[in-house]
Amino acid sequence: MSFAKLDAHGHSLSALEHALSILGVDEATAMASGGGEQRAETMASLSGMLHRQATDSKLAQWIADAKAEDLTTEQNIAVAEFERNYINMTCLPADFVERKMRTSMRSEQLWRTARPNGDWEAFRPALEGVVEMVREEAAMRAEVLGLAPYDALMEQFDPGNRTSDITPVFAALKAFLVDFLPKALALQQERHAKRPLKALSGEYPVERQKALGLEMMQAVGFDMNHGSLSVSDHPFCGGVPTDVRLTTRYRTDEFLPALMGILHETGHGLYEQNLPKAWAHWPSGKARGMSLHESQSLFVEKQIGRNPAFWQFALPHLARHLGEDWSIEDLLPHVHLIKRGKIRVDADEVTYPLHVILRYELEQALLSGELEVRDLPEAWDTKMRDYLGISTIDDPKNGPMQDVHWPSGAFGYFPSYTLGAMMAAQQWAAIVADHPGANADIAAGDLGALNTWRRERIWHRASMGSTPEILREATGESLNPAHFIAHLEARYGV
Amino acid sequence: MSFAKLDAHGHSLSALEHALSILGVDEATAMASGGGEQRAETMASLSGMLHRQATDSKLAQWIADAKAEDLTTEQNIAVAEFERNYINMTCLPADFVERKMRTSMRSEQLWRTARPNGDWEAFRPALEGVVEMVREEAAMRAEVLGLAPYDALMEQFDPGNRTSDITPVFAALKAFLVDFLPKALALQQERHAKRPLKALSGEYPVERQKALGLEMMQAVGFDMNHGSLSVSDHPFCGGVPTDVRLTTRYRTDEFLPALMGILHETGHGLYEQNLPKAWAHWPSGKARGMSLHESQSLFVEKQIGRNPAFWQFALPHLARHLGEDWSIEDLLPHVHLIKRGKIRVDADEVTYPLHVILRYELEQALLSGELEVRDLPEAWDTKMRDYLGISTIDDPKNGPMQDVHWPSGAFGYFPSYTLGAMMAAQQWAAIVADHPGANADIAAGDLGALNTWRRERIWHRASMGSTPEILREATGESLNPAHFIAHLEARYGV
Repeated sequence: MSFAKLDAHGHSLSALEHALSILGVDEATAMASGGGEQRAETMASLSGMLHRQATDSKLAQWIADAKAEDLTTEQNIAVAEFERNYINMTCLPADFVERKMRTSMRSEQLWRTARPNGDWEAFRPALEGVVEMVREEAAMRAEVLGLAPYDALMEQFDPGNRTSDITPVFAALKAFLVDFLPKALALQQERHAKRPLKALSGEYPVERQKALGLEMMQAVGFDMNHGSLSVSDHPFCGGVPTDVRLTTRYRTDEFLPALMGILHETGHGLYEQNLPKAWAHWPSGKARGMSLHESQSLFVEKQIGRNPAFWQFALPHLARHLGEDWSIEDLLPHVHLIKRGKIRVDADEVTYPLHVILRYELEQALLSGELEVRDLPEAWDTKMRDYLGISTIDDPKNGPMQDVHWPSGAFGYFPSYTLGAMMAAQQWAAIVADHPGANADIAAGDLGALNTWRRERIWHRASMGSTPEILREATGESLNPAHFIAHLEARYGV
Repeated sequence: MSFAKLDAHGHSLSALEHALSILGVDEATAMASGGGEQRAETMASLSGMLHRQATDSKLAQWIADAKAEDLTTEQNIAVAEFERNYINMTCLPADFVERKMRTSMRSEQLWRTARPNGDWEAFRPALEGVVEMVREEAAMRAEVLGLAPYDALMEQFDPGNRTSDITPVFAALKAFLVDFLPKALALQQERHAKRPLKALSGEYPVERQKALGLEMMQAVGFDMNHGSLSVSDHPFCGGVPTDVRLTTRYRTDEFLPALMGILHETGHGLYEQNLPKAWAHWPSGKARGMSLHESQSLFVEKQIGRNPAFWQFALPHLARHLGEDWSIEDLLPHVHLIKRGKIRVDADEVTYPLHVILRYELEQALLSGELEVRDLPEAWDTKMRDYLGISTIDDPKNGPMQDVHWPSGAFGYFPSYTLGAMMAAQQWAAIVADHPGANADIAAGDLGALNTWRRERIWHRASMGSTPEILREATGESLNPAHFIAHLEARYGV
């Protein structure tokens, strides 16, 4: 029976994925510094095994045979996902895959050297090489998948996402934000004039911040029997669904960045911990994609963690762990602080989408050939001035050189961030429609009903549908920018 | 070129070994408790991949072809080790390997249930099954390797170790110890009567013990850029040569067990860290075997760490970290405490070999059929009374049920412990012959000359010779019990 072979194949791939994931966590949290070179070799070798197993030509036959077998609905969906993965992984010739890896590794290395000095001219040829290669890649993927080139790239990160759906949504959001941002900033300035921002700085030992973080993780539903919290230079959510490894980093003079970071990673972790266990080794049993994953982390960070109701619940815990007696009026202005800036990763929830839409537009233009790399600094600057009122023309380091994505060859990934933010708002709106007491629940520290909704409609769906399908079935409608817009209007009081 | 294929095969095996090793360390030190089941499945799956790769029939051809190629001496030795491993791993039929795994897993599980109550009759049938299976296994290994059955079992753990060499050595040691132990105990009693044992108990915070441990690890040569120290329930030395993971466990009311445990594991770690890096992925570049490995841990624990010269060096550090002002006369009686006991793992360096020789004799008798499992409690008791003056006839839990080795099917492993202790003493004697100032060096905290000797003669030899060859080339003679005997006589003053 061919399905049984696919099932065993799934176990084998999952074992290698498990090993790679834990080796990655270990590298970031426990490995001795001198172990890095050998670890990199080991991980490359295991990745090679994983790739060979995932692209083994026997799979095509097993998939074809399994389709003719008498399977359950879940098994049929699993076969379809095995096929989708197989096609996505085999649609590029092996020599191209090698060339791509070499090109993007060299480009990323050059980026790491050139970025600190903002040396655009040194970096430009490398990015040109990457763009040329990505154009080729997109054309090949498009041909095999029967999709437009940019859609074929997005398909790797979020099955089902299409520019025909996203572009009008982003256009509406952009139009709203460009108008909203100056108003929100003016209002914020007025508020700060009336009640100056109170500094939240102090001396907060790491152990106390960690105890607070652990308590908040569990309050929002994280299962400490199947996960943990440790420290790394760059916070992440790694590990496997049965053992989810969150990390954060602490500064002892402020607590908010670590706590909000923990809540963000906890959102990723809840998704992983609550995937259906029976199909954990099938592709259909894994988390769907980048935008849905981001919608889960942003749900916990923004919809719960920056919700005033959450701070009603959290304040006494904060006081107990950190020994500070802030009022909710002291805290919320920090939690909701917005400001214009050049850097995407430092942006707040109002400005962040403008950074993403800029990239979404520019990477499509680069891919189609409308834009060439040599003209990127000007194009970037024009959009930054239009959307955020900031110029980067003299500062390429904090302009088109700020992100690792393009130098490493990842095109089609950026929209995931803002799609995630919008989907989180849309899920929140659907929950509130079903449970008008959602805010009261959060204020009482009772996430039961919220998490049941999310478990049934998002987490347990795993990869049983495309990204737009899961969103539509969960919320009753397609991606609708009105929810995110209404969320910003309500939160920032414009 | 076939050697190149073997070389690539070595990289692939090493990657899987690296993953399995780190997954094991992670399980013991960082994994969330609920992650165990999935981790076990993952490790079984990776072990299966490793076994299939290591026993792939293509290897036989590559090895045969490589032998005809024009290779360097090191490459020729690597090919011989590839062949040795291949033969040892393929000499059992696949269905026997499966039966062996099932039998020993069931037996080990039964042992875990029956042992706490000392329920010998419940455990006996399982051990009978294991012994029957091990007799079959030894016969098959013996046939393929052209060795006696027990030698064929030892060959897995220590290539080159033979009963014809070991039995007379153990006989001499046993004769010495049975006479020596009562004298040493009487002498100890006299000393304690003159100067009562001073309690070393107190309140020693884990962080201080850890700081002391880290300092002592580095003092004996451990490279913290390629390793670390953490905590686990059962102390071990794991990881990979570029990232050696030591663990210990702490009690806050005493410091000596954790410190001596750290020194023991550091000895294993030094061996791993100092293996030749260029051949790390060849079998000839790995640590030789169990007894040589144990000789390295016991060298650091017993020859260095229980040496009075070491305590001259260590005392000020002890005082600084733990805040206690002991004299060397307070400490040494604890470091050299001996007593009769039923339990091997709790034994000191004088009584430990008697526990091992008892098992060495009994497992050979079980293998040959001279002894049956039903008669084991009596046979065990007889030897315990003869060698250690203790009866276990009414206490099977602390008699033949105390060790995991037999229930898990590991026969031929026990001698490694005492061979290691003897080899450590023999290496120490050879070092002192070359460097009469070895003790003065240790007292000054200068391990440079000692470690250079060990690096050149043991660590860098890796698996470039059999266990007896490496010992002979390092020390100028075959295994000689006189050195261990002289060591005990000198240390215990008999």
